[in-house]
Amino acid sequence: MKKILSAILVFTGLSTISLAQDLNRVKEPDMLRELHRSEILIPDIPGYKTLKGDFHMHTVFSDGEVWPTVRVQEAYIEGLDVIALTEHIEYRPNLDHLTGDHNTAYEIAAPHAERHNILLVKSAEISRSMPPGHLNALFLEDANKLDTEDYMDAIEEANRQGGFLFWVHPGWLAQQPDTNKWWPVHEELVQKGWLHGVEVYNWDEWYPIAFGWCNDKNLAYLGNTDAHMVSAYRFNLAEYHRPMTLVFVEERTVESVRDAMFARRTAAFFLNNLAGPEHLLRELFDASVEVRQPFMVNEEGTARLEVTNPTDLTFILENPSPSNDSPEKITLRPRSSVIITCDISGGEALLPYTVTNLHTGMEKNLGVELHVSSMP
Amino acid sequence: MKKILSAILVFTGLSTISLAQDLNRVKEPDMLRELHRSEILIPDIPGYKTLKGDFHMHTVFSDGEVWPTVRVQEAYIEGLDVIALTEHIEYRPNLDHLTGDHNTAYEIAAPHAERHNILLVKSAEISRSMPPGHLNALFLEDANKLDTEDYMDAIEEANRQGGFLFWVHPGWLAQQPDTNKWWPVHEELVQKGWLHGVEVYNWDEWYPIAFGWCNDKNLAYLGNTDAHMVSAYRFNLAEYHRPMTLVFVEERTVESVRDAMFARRTAAFFLNNLAGPEHLLRELFDASVEVRQPFMVNEEGTARLEVTNPTDLTFILENPSPSNDSPEKITLRPRSSVIITCDISGGEALLPYTVTNLHTGMEKNLGVELHVSSMP
Amino acid sequence: MKKILSAILVFTGLSTISLAQDLNRVKEPDMLRELHRSEILIPDIPGYKTLKGDFHMHTVFSDGEVWPTVRVQEAYIEGLDVIALTEHIEYRPNLDHLTGDHNTAYEIAAPHAERHNILLVKSAEISRSMPPGHLNALFLEDANKLDTEDYMDAIEEANRQGGFLFWVHPGWLAQQPDTNKWWPVHEELVQKGWLHGVEVYNWDEWYPIAFGWCNDKNLAYLGNTDAHMVSAYRFNLAEYHRPMTLVFVEERTVESVRDAMFARRTAAFFLNNLAGPEHLLRELFDASVEVRQPFMVNEEGTARLEVTNPTDLTFILENPSPSNDSPEKITLRPRSSVIITCDISGGEALLPYTVTNLHTGMEKNLGVELHVSSMP
Amino acid sequence: MKKILSAILVFTGLSTISLAQDLNRVKEPDMLRELHRSEILIPDIPGYKTLKGDFHMHTVFSDGEVWPTVRVQEAYIEGLDVIALTEHIEYRPNLDHLTGDHNTAYEIAAPHAERHNILLVKSAEISRSMPPGHLNALFLEDANKLDTEDYMDAIEEANRQGGFLFWVHPGWLAQQPDTNKWWPVHEELVQKGWLHGVEVYNWDEWYPIAFGWCNDKNLAYLGNTDAHMVSAYRFNLAEYHRPMTLVFVEERTVESVRDAMFARRTAAFFLNNLAGPEHLLRELFDASVEVRQPFMVNEEGTARLEVTNPTDLTFILENPSPSNDSPEKITLRPRSSVIITCDISGGEALLPYTVTNLHTGMEKNLGVELHVSSMP
Repeated sequence: MKKILSAILVFTGLSTISLAQDLNRVKEPDMLRELHRSEILIPDIPGYKTLKGDFHMHTVFSDGEVWPTVRVQEAYIEGLDVIALTEHIEYRPNLDHLTGDHNTAYEIAAPHAERHNILLVKSAEISRSMPPGHLNALFLEDANKLDTEDYMDAIEEANRQGGFLFWVHPGWLAQQPDTNKWWPVHEELVQKGWLHGVEVYNWDEWYPIAFGWCNDKNLAYLGNTDAHMVSAYRFNLAEYHRPMTLVFVEERTVESVRDAMFARRTAAFFLNNLAGPEHLLRELFDASVEVRQPFMVNEEGTARLEVTNPTDLTFILENPSPSNDSPEKITLRPRSSVIITCDISGGEALLPYTVTNLHTGMEKNLGVELHVSSMP
Repeated sequence: MKKILSAILVFTGLSTISLAQDLNRVKEPDMLRELHRSEILIPDIPGYKTLKGDFHMHTVFSDGEVWPTVRVQEAYIEGLDVIALTEHIEYRPNLDHLTGDHNTAYEIAAPHAERHNILLVKSAEISRSMPPGHLNALFLEDANKLDTEDYMDAIEEANRQGGFLFWVHPGWLAQQPDTNKWWPVHEELVQKGWLHGVEVYNWDEWYPIAFGWCNDKNLAYLGNTDAHMVSAYRFNLAEYHRPMTLVFVEERTVESVRDAMFARRTAAFFLNNLAGPEHLLRELFDASVEVRQPFMVNEEGTARLEVTNPTDLTFILENPSPSNDSPEKITLRPRSSVIITCDISGGEALLPYTVTNLHTGMEKNLGVELHVSSMP
Repeated sequence: MKKILSAILVFTGLSTISLAQDLNRVKEPDMLRELHRSEILIPDIPGYKTLKGDFHMHTVFSDGEVWPTVRVQEAYIEGLDVIALTEHIEYRPNLDHLTGDHNTAYEIAAPHAERHNILLVKSAEISRSMPPGHLNALFLEDANKLDTEDYMDAIEEANRQGGFLFWVHPGWLAQQPDTNKWWPVHEELVQKGWLHGVEVYNWDEWYPIAFGWCNDKNLAYLGNTDAHMVSAYRFNLAEYHRPMTLVFVEERTVESVRDAMFARRTAAFFLNNLAGPEHLLRELFDASVEVRQPFMVNEEGTARLEVTNPTDLTFILENPSPSNDSPEKITLRPRSSVIITCDISGGEALLPYTVTNLHTGMEKNLGVELHVSSMP
Repeated sequence: MKKILSAILVFTGLSTISLAQDLNRVKEPDMLRELHRSEILIPDIPGYKTLKGDFHMHTVFSDGEVWPTVRVQEAYIEGLDVIALTEHIEYRPNLDHLTGDHNTAYEIAAPHAERHNILLVKSAEISRSMPPGHLNALFLEDANKLDTEDYMDAIEEANRQGGFLFWVHPGWLAQQPDTNKWWPVHEELVQKGWLHGVEVYNWDEWYPIAFGWCNDKNLAYLGNTDAHMVSAYRFNLAEYHRPMTLVFVEERTVESVRDAMFARRTAAFFLNNLAGPEHLLRELFDASVEVRQPFMVNEEGTARLEVTNPTDLTFILENPSPSNDSPEKITLRPRSSVIITCDISGGEALLPYTVTNLHTGMEKNLGVELHVSSMP
C-alpha cells in the first residue's frame, strides 16, 4: 500500500522529522505497471534456441479489436519472441472506419516491433468455408496477392511467395460439427507440398486427432491464441501463460524461424501441456528436469532424492505400473522440486514414467526413465 | 492446474474407470478469463448511489492505441459504470489509416456500451498550449463543433451544448514546469460559468494545490486515467483499482451523472486515496467503517473492540495527539477488521483521528471521531 | 518494491533534495504482513447472523504440529468467528515433550482467543476404530472425563456435559474402505439423542451420501479442516477459503453457537460448495444474489439484465431445460455481476435454475427461480 | 474453480454423457496446496554453490509459537537449504507445558529435516542485556553447556565447541535506544576471535552502520527472520521472499556451511536488497545480469539492447552521472528484461552504474560497468 506523502515521517534515532510534500505535483510510480519483458523460463535444447511465438492474431484491420501496435506490446510484456498478425483476407468488418490494404496492419506494427525486439512475420489468414476451412500463411511478401476468388489460387500464391501454410482450428465446431476429419483437399495440399503445419491448439481448444495428422503427414505442430480482443482480458494469465508455439531456431531471426518451421522444429504449449514431435519434447524434458543423487538411503536400500524443475514448464509424471518402489505420480510445478522415494538396493534404479501432459501423438505421451544412482 | 483429460481416472469405492477423451476436440475453459463485471465495493451514501467513472481516455481516433470498443470492455471488466472517450480535437495521428470525425469513436462504442450497461458520455478534449492547457468537455451533442481555431470559441460552443468542462492534468510538467499555477484565463472561465471541474489526479500524478482550487472556486474533483494504451497493461491493477472519479447520483443514467457533476457531487479515487468535498468523504467514511461495541473490557476500563471496513476502500487513521489511550495509527484495509484498544473507563470514548488518505483540500484531511461505547 | 532509503530523491517543483537515511536502523514495514482479520463476505439470513467456524483441528497436544495459539491466529487472519481444538483423546504422540491433560490446549488458547474475539469451544475427538469411528464432542466442561475405556462411556459422558457430538470424516478410506455406510451404532446414537451432526466435508474430501443421512436423521451438516499442520501451508488459500462450517446464530456467543448447532442451523462451505438444509441455502442464495431490472429490451421482448453477487460465495446456475430464452449456465463469481438475456415479452419471466454447487441432499441441489421483471 | 462432479458433462463429438459421481467420497485435490520445495532462482558464483539459510528462529522451546517441525516445513516450502533453531538459553516461557532441555528443539526437528533435505544446525541464542546483547551460536555440540551465569562463560563455551557466533539485531531499539553503537565488549570478542558475524538484517529492520562493522572487523554479514510465529503469517511472502542469509559453499553440507561462514562467504538478502562483501555481490551480479548485443543501432550510433535478469533477484541501477547517452535508472525485476538505449558510436560503450539495492558497506553500493558492444 502506498504511503501518503503528506504523512511521511522519517524516524531517526533521535528525532522525527516531517517531510513536506510538493503541493504542485505528487508522482505515484506504484500506480503504473513497468513496461518490461517477462522472461518465460523454457530451456534451449541441444543445437537450438527456444523461441516463443504466436502465429495467429487479429487486429481492427480484420475482425480484431486492437490496433496493430497493441499486439507488439502484448508480446513484449507477455514474453513472446515472434508474432504474426494474421488478418482475414475475406472478412474486414471495420473497413467503414479504416483505410489501407492487407499489408497495413503489418506496416503499422513493424517499426514498433523492431524497437521492442519482437520478430514480426508478414502474414494473412485465408478464411474459407470447409473445405479447406481457414489457413494461415506466414512469411509472405505481399498479402494483397492472396485476395483471390478461388482459394486454391490464394494458397498457390502464398506458396509462390515462400509462405509457410498451416490449417488453423481444424476442429472448429462451426466447420467440423461432427467428426473432426481430414479432407481430401488437405491431402491434396500436403501432396503438393503446399501445407506445412496444423494448429493443434486454438483459443480454448485442442484437437488430439490433429497430433496424429502432424505425425503421419510430417507437419509442424502449432498452438496459437487466435486473439481478437486484448490478450490479457481474455486469457487466464494469472494461472497460465498464453497459448503459444515454441520454435527451435538456430538464431533469433525471422529467417531462422521460417527454417525451423519448415523443418518441423516446433511444439504447441497450452495450459500446462506441450504437444510436438517426440524427440523435441524429450530434449525439452531432459533440459528441464534434473534427478538428483539421493540424499538419504536407509538400510533396505530405499532412497530419498529430489527431482528438480527450475523452468516455467510443468511435468506430470505417472507411473504406468505403480508399485511401492516408486511414486504413483510425480508433479513437477514450475520452479520447484519434489522429494521422491525409490528402491536403489541394487545401487541404482531406472524409473519408467509417462509424462501425461506431454503429447507426442494422438493418445501418445512422452515416456521417460528417471535414472537414480547413488553415484554422483 | 488443469488435469489432462486423457489421464482422468475416476476413483470410486470399488474400482477405477478410465474416461476416454474426445479425440476431435478438447475444451479448456480454464484457459479463458470469464467476461464478468468485477464489483468494486464502495457504499452508496445517504440519498445517492455511488457510480464509478473514468472521464478521460483515448482511442485510435486520437492518439490512443485501442479501438473504441476496448474501452467499454475494460470498463465492464474493471467495474466502472460510466466512461467518456475524450479524443483530442487537435491531435489525431492515425488519420492516415482512419476515416470519420470527432464523433466516430463515440458512435462505434455506443452500441457496445449499451449492451454492457456502461453509460457512455459523448465528449472531447480541447487540447491547447498553456494557457488554458487541456480541457475535457463532457455531455456534448456534437464534438465536431469544437474544432475551432480560437480555443475560447470551442469552450463557448461546448458550454452552449450544455457541456461540463474540466481542466485536465493542470500540473502536467510539460505545461506547468515550475509552479503549478492558476492562470487568469481559468479565473475568467470560472467567472463566466464555463469551467466546472478540475482533474486533480491524472495517470500517475496528483496535484494537491488543485484541491484548493476545487474548494475555493466551487469546482468538482475528478480523477481519471488518461489512458492511451490498454488499461490492464499500464496500470498496476494487481495492487490497486484503476484511478477513477466517484459520482454520487440520483439514478444510474447519463443525465443523472451530468446533474451530479454540475452539483459537484464527485470525488477522485486513486491508489488508496480519495479527494473530494469534506461532506461527501465523511459520508463515505461513515457508510464504510463500523466501530463495534467492545468485546472485552478490563478492570482499568481498557476496552478491546473491532473496527471493521467491509468495503474495497482503504482508510488510514492517524492520531493527531498520540497517547497510550488509543492507537497511534489504525489501518483499515479493504474487507478487513482490526482490533484496537482504548480507555472507556468513563463508559464511552470519542477518539479523534485524521484520515490521512482522505483529502478534503490542499494539506487538509478528513477528521473523524470514532465513538466507542459499551452500550449496544 | 521497496525503495532504498539511501536513494530517496524527493522531487519538488524547484529542486531535488536528498534524504539522508538513518544509519542506525532502517525500518521495512513492507516486509511484514499486517495482522488484521480478513472479512469473508457472507450475508446474514433473516433472523440470524452468519458465523464462520472450524470445529475440527489439532495441535501438538494431540497429533498436530502447532501450538494452540497458532490456531487462534489462523482463525483471526483467515476470517473465522469460532473454533474448536479437538485433540484426540486416544492419540497424543508428543507426550514425551509435553505436560498437561486433555484440557490443556484449550486453556493455553483461551486467553489468546478472548483477546482476538475468537469464540473458543472446549472440545475433544473421541477416536476409535470403526464402528463408531471418530466423533467430535463440542461444548464440553471437562475433556478429561472422556478418557474412558469403552467408547460408549465417553459418548455418554460428553452428552452428560451437554456436548454436541458429530461423526467426523465418516467416509475416511481407512475406516470405510468399501461403501461409506451408516452403522447400527450410529443409528443407536441417533435414537438415544447422542449424535447431533455429521462432518460432510473433511480435509480434502466430501461425502454425498452423508447429506442424505443429515436429512434423514435430522443431523447438522458440518465442514471442517481437520488441520494438523499450519492451515496456510496445507490449504490452497490463494484460490479458496479454508473449509468451514457456517453457523446461523442469534448472537455471537459460544452459547448461541451451541443453540444453533442443536437446532441444525449450519451448513458446510468447502471450495465453492455449500451443503446444508434446503431452507438455509435458499435464504443464503436470496440474501446474496440480486436479479436486476432489465437495462435493455428489444422489440422481440428479449431483455438484457444484470445478475449480481456482491458476496464471497460462488453460485453456479444451470438451466435444467435449456432453451434459447435464457442462458444454459450462469456463473456468479465472488463480487461480480454477469449480464444475461431472456425473453420477457410477457412483461416478466420466471427462470428456473439448479444451483449445482449448493447441495441440499444426496444428489439434490437447490432449485431457484430468477424473477425478471421490467417493473422496478 | 472446482467443477462439481455431480454435474460433469463430457462433451464428445456425437453425444453428451453424464458421469456419475461417487456418492461415498469425492476427493478435492484442488483444496490442498502441494508440498513441494519452491526453488528460489539465485545463481551460484564461480567456485561456490549458493545456499539459502535462516539462522535465527524460535519455537515453543523458547518463546516461539510453533513446534520445531514447522520450521522445517516452512524452510522446505519457502526454498531454504539450511536453518538453525536458536532458542533463547535464558527465556523459555512455555516450560510449564514442555519437558526437555536446550537441545530438544533440535532433536525433534532433526529427523524431519533429514527427510526433507534441509540442513539443520544445532544452535542457541545467548540472550543478555546490553552489552553484549544477544548472540547466536551456531554449529554447537551441546547447547546445554551455554546455560551459564556469566555471559562470557557461555560465549567461551560456544567457541570451545567450535561455534560460529554473531551479534543479532544489534540496532534493536530496546537495547540501543539512541545511537546504534559498537561496544568495547564486542571489540574484545573480536580481538579474542570469539565473534564471527553480525546480523545486519533482523525481522523488519536493517542496520547500515553494521555493514561498516562487518567490513572493518572482518565479520560475516547475516540476515535472518528471527521468526517466532509461523513465517507465512508474519512475512509479506506475496511480494518478497523471506529474509535470509546467502551462504556460498563448496558443497551442500553443514560442515561446508560452517566453513563458508568462518570464511565470511555470506550475504544478507532482505526485501530486494543484498548486503555483503563487494566481491561476492559483484560475482552475484555478474552471474545474474546479461547485457545483450544491440538489436538495433541508428545512424547516430544510438543502440537499443536488452539487459536480462533471469533470476529471482532484483537489481536497481542508477546512473551516477546522468546524461542523454544512457538511462538514468534501470530496474531489473526478477525474471525480466528491459530495453535500454545508449550511444555506441565508438563501436562499444562502458556504462557506469550504481546498484542502489546492493550494499557493500555503510553508505556504499556496488558499482558496475555495463559493457555494450556491437560485436557478439
